[in-house]
Amino acid sequence: MTSAFDVLGIGNAIVDVIARADDAFLSRHTLTKGSMMLIDEARAETLYGAMGPGIEVSGGSCGNTMAGVASFGGKGAYIGKVRNDQLGAVFGHDLKSLGVAFETPQATAGPATARCLILVTPDAQRTMNTYLGACTGLGPADIDTAAVAGAAVTYVEGYLWDEPEAKKAVLKAFDTAHAAGRLVSITLSDSFCVDRYREEFRALVRDKVDILFGNEAEIKSLYQTSSFEQAMEAARKEARIAALTRSEKGSVVIKGSETHVVAAAPVARVVDTTGAGDLYASGFLYGFTRGKPLAECARLGGIAAAEVICHVGARPETPLKDLI
Amino acid sequence: MTSAFDVLGIGNAIVDVIARADDAFLSRHTLTKGSMMLIDEARAETLYGAMGPGIEVSGGSCGNTMAGVASFGGKGAYIGKVRNDQLGAVFGHDLKSLGVAFETPQATAGPATARCLILVTPDAQRTMNTYLGACTGLGPADIDTAAVAGAAVTYVEGYLWDEPEAKKAVLKAFDTAHAAGRLVSITLSDSFCVDRYREEFRALVRDKVDILFGNEAEIKSLYQTSSFEQAMEAARKEARIAALTRSEKGSVVIKGSETHVVAAAPVARVVDTTGAGDLYASGFLYGFTRGKPLAECARLGGIAAAEVICHVGARPETPLKDLI
Repeated sequence: MTSAFDVLGIGNAIVDVIARADDAFLSRHTLTKGSMMLIDEARAETLYGAMGPGIEVSGGSCGNTMAGVASFGGKGAYIGKVRNDQLGAVFGHDLKSLGVAFETPQATAGPATARCLILVTPDAQRTMNTYLGACTGLGPADIDTAAVAGAAVTYVEGYLWDEPEAKKAVLKAFDTAHAAGRLVSITLSDSFCVDRYREEFRALVRDKVDILFGNEAEIKSLYQTSSFEQAMEAARKEARIAALTRSEKGSVVIKGSETHVVAAAPVARVVDTTGAGDLYASGFLYGFTRGKPLAECARLGGIAAAEVICHVGARPETPLKDLI
Repeated sequence: MTSAFDVLGIGNAIVDVIARADDAFLSRHTLTKGSMMLIDEARAETLYGAMGPGIEVSGGSCGNTMAGVASFGGKGAYIGKVRNDQLGAVFGHDLKSLGVAFETPQATAGPATARCLILVTPDAQRTMNTYLGACTGLGPADIDTAAVAGAAVTYVEGYLWDEPEAKKAVLKAFDTAHAAGRLVSITLSDSFCVDRYREEFRALVRDKVDILFGNEAEIKSLYQTSSFEQAMEAARKEARIAALTRSEKGSVVIKGSETHVVAAAPVARVVDTTGAGDLYASGFLYGFTRGKPLAECARLGGIAAAEVICHVGARPETPLKDLI
């Protein structure tokens, strides 16, 4: 079956505002290091006012993944909602200039394009504070069913569960993809996000998802265990394919009785871990949609993750196709 | 005489959009490497559409200088015009979060906040394309005369000569500063800018400017010579103090019969030269307003310039006060 797209991603369309901060800043503003917290506009204003100078870079977990797929040379499409404002234009430009199809109508009224205020501490950890803004307008009507039916894999963020209409959009896309004989994939996104939607996510993994992505904290949260091995075995029973990332320990891919343990790609110095999981998914899905064996998919994921943690910002600076 | 501010800067308030490009891209779009070109909105749209993914960082030559002054621990104020849009908010935040006073009223109508599309080629050279947008609204009414009278040095960009009302604003500020017994300073900004306003700049240097900044190409253009030594001697006759930068050759400061040749600070790898001259001015003016000898001012300028060329973006990533 030929595909118009290797991967179609659905996500929160967000521009990141990245600033350095120290641990005292996180404490002072009661931020939980390493997590993603949703904030309202007033809180966003307050936090932004307290932050140091930032740089703005297009982000959004799934947007980062799609940028990575394109950077490998894959054909990608993206569905997400921005407003017709300056940051919306930036977000659209940054995807389309990579060759990713992005045709979701912009909101012409209502909240501004989403921003994620990211504090990077000296230990290279990122703490994310997301004002969803225009993302809350994403709904089933935004699903381009022809595009979904033409994509080898439809990939979505767990973060979308925070908005009921976005969740409906995802379920519509999943059904469309499956009806067309395509695969669907989800990332668990964040352990706190898993806490919020554990039962729904478990049902999805059992009933719909073909490829599951999660990091160690997320998969442990999903199966409510403090043991990675127990979480992995639980995933083995419920997931068709699960790609589980473990930071510097690399990743483990399980599929039925198969287990592929793949080392992390070497990194000279970790600068900013933002986007590591997003880019792992880029490499994995690029390899997968090119018919590579699972261990090779994991290796490609590791290469992409290694590139993105060597610099500030969650999108590749070096074309990923030059690294393989 | 005590000062409310060490340095008050007046400049084009611009957000940079920085993308990597190869030499072929510059040729294709007839861009002159290393220069600053003014573009209109239509050209900005076309060029942006052709560029790869970018990052957005507050910029503007004088804005960068003021960020540097603050990063050294100096007291700064800035006058420049943005619109009340998202990029205007970003620009304001990035200065104010460093402690720079920035009270210029935002435009509430008219063109958007200015953008500079910067292409960084593999040789680390930057080629700048500026859409002035809201900057064209800067005029004499925006000069806070009390702030100017309270600043030890008022520092401006030569780039402001591209807008007649901004030029009037600068001349008002210079007169205000001198009437209050303060000093005024200008950077020549760009050799093409010098070509456009050579006679006006020479008259200014003779009649008003206390501290002149320029790089080798600019000072040669000002005095229409291909010899740096001849340009320097011409500047010696006309300028009260001239700080002349020469990239990897460091800088030369002249004042009457005094000549201070100061080596460049060592740099491991030049990544992006954007902001080198702007940050040199930060260090120089910080030192100068703290009463340091001219050679020490030049050394501080070199340290700031070295920091900013080691990374993408024209504002310091490391607090400059930690480097001295």
